Amino acid sequence: MDRRPPRDEEYRPLLERLYLELDPPSLRDNTADLDRLVKGLRRRGIDPVDVHPSSIGPLRERILQGDFKVTAVLARTGPKWELVDVLPGREEGPLWGLALDLGTSRLAFYLLDLRAGEVAETASVPNPQIPWGEDILARILHARREDLRRELGEMLARAVNRTAGEMVRRRGGSLDRVYAFSVAGNTTMTHFFLGLDPSRICREPYIPVANRFPFFHARDLALDLHPRAPVYVFPNVGSYFGGDLVAGILATGMQRREEVSMLVDVGTNAEVVLGNRDWLLACAGAAGPALEGGVVERGMMAAPGAVDRVRVDPETLELSYRVLGGGKPRGLCGSGLIDLVAELFAAGVLTVQGRIDLRAPTDRVRETPDGPAFLVAPAEETADGRDLLVSQIDIGILLKSKAAMYTILSVITRKVGMEIRDVSRIFVAGTFGNRIDPAMAVRMGMLPDLPLETYQGMGNTAGEGAVMILRDRSLLEDVQRICDRITYVELNVNMELMNEFRGALFLPHTDPGLFPSVAVPRRALGKED
Amino acid sequence: MDRRPPRDEEYRPLLERLYLELDPPSLRDNTADLDRLVKGLRRRGIDPVDVHPSSIGPLRERILQGDFKVTAVLARTGPKWELVDVLPGREEGPLWGLALDLGTSRLAFYLLDLRAGEVAETASVPNPQIPWGEDILARILHARREDLRRELGEMLARAVNRTAGEMVRRRGGSLDRVYAFSVAGNTTMTHFFLGLDPSRICREPYIPVANRFPFFHARDLALDLHPRAPVYVFPNVGSYFGGDLVAGILATGMQRREEVSMLVDVGTNAEVVLGNRDWLLACAGAAGPALEGGVVERGMMAAPGAVDRVRVDPETLELSYRVLGGGKPRGLCGSGLIDLVAELFAAGVLTVQGRIDLRAPTDRVRETPDGPAFLVAPAEETADGRDLLVSQIDIGILLKSKAAMYTILSVITRKVGMEIRDVSRIFVAGTFGNRIDPAMAVRMGMLPDLPLETYQGMGNTAGEGAVMILRDRSLLEDVQRICDRITYVELNVNMELMNEFRGALFLPHTDPGLFPSVAVPRRALGKED
Repeated sequence: MDRRPPRDEEYRPLLERLYLELDPPSLRDNTADLDRLVKGLRRRGIDPVDVHPSSIGPLRERILQGDFKVTAVLARTGPKWELVDVLPGREEGPLWGLALDLGTSRLAFYLLDLRAGEVAETASVPNPQIPWGEDILARILHARREDLRRELGEMLARAVNRTAGEMVRRRGGSLDRVYAFSVAGNTTMTHFFLGLDPSRICREPYIPVANRFPFFHARDLALDLHPRAPVYVFPNVGSYFGGDLVAGILATGMQRREEVSMLVDVGTNAEVVLGNRDWLLACAGAAGPALEGGVVERGMMAAPGAVDRVRVDPETLELSYRVLGGGKPRGLCGSGLIDLVAELFAAGVLTVQGRIDLRAPTDRVRETPDGPAFLVAPAEETADGRDLLVSQIDIGILLKSKAAMYTILSVITRKVGMEIRDVSRIFVAGTFGNRIDPAMAVRMGMLPDLPLETYQGMGNTAGEGAVMILRDRSLLEDVQRICDRITYVELNVNMELMNEFRGALFLPHTDPGLFPSVAVPRRALGKED
Repeated sequence: MDRRPPRDEEYRPLLERLYLELDPPSLRDNTADLDRLVKGLRRRGIDPVDVHPSSIGPLRERILQGDFKVTAVLARTGPKWELVDVLPGREEGPLWGLALDLGTSRLAFYLLDLRAGEVAETASVPNPQIPWGEDILARILHARREDLRRELGEMLARAVNRTAGEMVRRRGGSLDRVYAFSVAGNTTMTHFFLGLDPSRICREPYIPVANRFPFFHARDLALDLHPRAPVYVFPNVGSYFGGDLVAGILATGMQRREEVSMLVDVGTNAEVVLGNRDWLLACAGAAGPALEGGVVERGMMAAPGAVDRVRVDPETLELSYRVLGGGKPRGLCGSGLIDLVAELFAAGVLTVQGRIDLRAPTDRVRETPDGPAFLVAPAEETADGRDLLVSQIDIGILLKSKAAMYTILSVITRKVGMEIRDVSRIFVAGTFGNRIDPAMAVRMGMLPDLPLETYQGMGNTAGEGAVMILRDRSLLEDVQRICDRITYVELNVNMELMNEFRGALFLPHTDPGLFPSVAVPRRALGKED
């Protein structure tokens, strides 16, 4: 996340704040009080201005309080300006805006001071809905009844009120002076947030209630921000391509580039966008949670105690690892698992079929009741005092995920008649996009064999996109264009995938010509040295 | 009130209703449900469409209920369309809209079927605020406290709900299927209706909270119409020139005419507009309630029992009258009083100074403890069994009112360097605009001496304007232009009036050259026949 304000000379955030000294009314100029403010704004180029009907009375009181010297807070939410608030006198303190990555697992908040656009506070909390289902399908099922659905929505609103309230209070502000809010979530989370019924999202033919939304106001959504604070909810492209990814596209800037680039969001669903300023093609396919550290027995999220880097000396087969936050390891996160497989393969401990070679000259290869396994850390080195093992079964799961990922990338590229090598840049996003070592991901055949500088790890692209739209209102039009232009290919219903998939199950691939830079050790081919 | 639909070939009401058969979603076209409707509307030329954030979920339910065959109700409230409601299946019954003349004394309702624009029902009820003050100043004082102000506003909302509810139920409909509402009231009534503080309207420098309003929605104003029914509130021009008069201008059509015409609204305040499609000048001045039948001892509103026509035979001095609703008279309304003074003057019973000539050869002239009086109907002919008398004091009051009226017309015409005879048409509005006999009003010197065909009596112009804007949305722009263009002259602060006024106190005027068509009887000059 770039904490610095944007470098553009023209800084045009969603909110503007203006101090005005209006001529007081007189018999010669008896313009109505609110009309006088609107006229004053017009003279400053703020035109046309919409005033919410319910705020006419209260805003006029502020004008009188300030004796016609007032600070107006305005939002540019479309072709018109919205008058959000009027403060008596001159107000020069922070101008707060809030951005949210509304994730299935976590909510990531960014509090911005929109005077210059810097991020003042960040916070991340677990999604409060988790008790009603780790995965989103369980929550959709739980939300069949309208009251339960409403409850799930209210949980999100309360979490926003609580966390954002703490953030802004830490900076000496108050939540009702937060004047803008942007939210990027997947299609289902967006439905929950807006109180919409998500039940048809997961049933053929997979139809959301709505994909594009008008600006909401904080009051509509039971949020304790300023009641008239505009709330921007990123639109969805489809049931499996949500606003989080649209925000992700913004974060890469690919929608403005001439060269073709690719965004790969690595997660349970592999979401991929290919394109440039003229066209965009998107698809999503199930890659499985293994790449994020899920499902795998000792897999975990990238959190303190997770092994996120693994190196294996190909000569000695000695293993070293790095633990997030230091201390003893508790498990492996996605990048740790990818490193492990790639390194074991390079060292000849894994065959091209991904099998652990029991004959490998290391005592880390173990036979267990569940089959072969590889010892990452012995019991005395781990946090829980148990051997940290990755089993043959775990590796099998991981290979299926990486094969799905690679297949999706191949298919989408071929859809537009391109070769993968024509892609100038690949943005790797996802909760651990920044952690993946592209060299490792290429070696295991998860990402295509391109010069490493092609790859750019991204942090939380959904959060970054949500921050960006507060800082630069011209991106509202980019989002519109992205949604108008993007073609979405539903890979879930595409059988072509299966044929591709089988070849990609190998390390790095059944067709080694696809991975010229990856040396396949003789031992991995099942041959002795 | 014209009950017929407009004759224009292009009928473009505020609401449109469209039946759409949408393709149901499929794997090949998994557009979100609401987006599908918006696309379908776009294909029918309804673009862009705004959907209120709170209605996304409910409207989608209707789409599913109708199995993608739906009737959409839309309002054209600005550069965008608003999606007001969606009904499952094909809906062909009445498309209800409501118009209101929000008067200080009475609320006049018009229920329209906007399929073709005809008025289906009308109703008129007393303003429920009357117990808190007959005149508006008393109500403004009463409303100093915010809770009392809120109460006054809520009384209006309840009256709308009750009366409009009855109207639509009489036609077999329900209030929540009324989809549009237009309201024309004076500046203070408009403030009460919107819950705004009117206290500064009546204090120098006479400043309303706001003159121009966005479209409200029924829900914002606690109205039981369809919650998202757009509510159009006519803008004010100033504290003393309200939305009722702006609506009145629409009713005359003067804002589109090439020739200069004049609108005279006869009431406690005489409100006058002069102009054409290029310019408009407005002013208001206190004329006193006498012209409406107020103040004068036996004066009354134009209601059953009111004498509204009086004729006096100049030879025999015999008097005949007409009673509204038949039966015995209870008093005289404005047009009856005007007739009486004009006829008594022509018959020589009133002098040019407006004095009752005690020597007039009729036994209807009486001496009373309060001075001279004229007997309109003896006790045995009246509803209350008392003589129906009009006293010298009453006539004095009436002459002051007519003098004020004439003065205002002279001053405004001279302001633009015109002669009154250059005015091609004079629309006479006010609650009894239709009842005034222009010949009588000219003879008493209240209206200028122009060919009688110049005068066009209007009914309730505020109500008519409110009806028209529902029938013809292009008038929204007319209103905008009227407000941008109109110049308002505050005659209350204009001393020029006083000099004019004195001459106009005479019958018909001290300068008989201004009233060449009015024969002044010798007797009225104080000379014997």
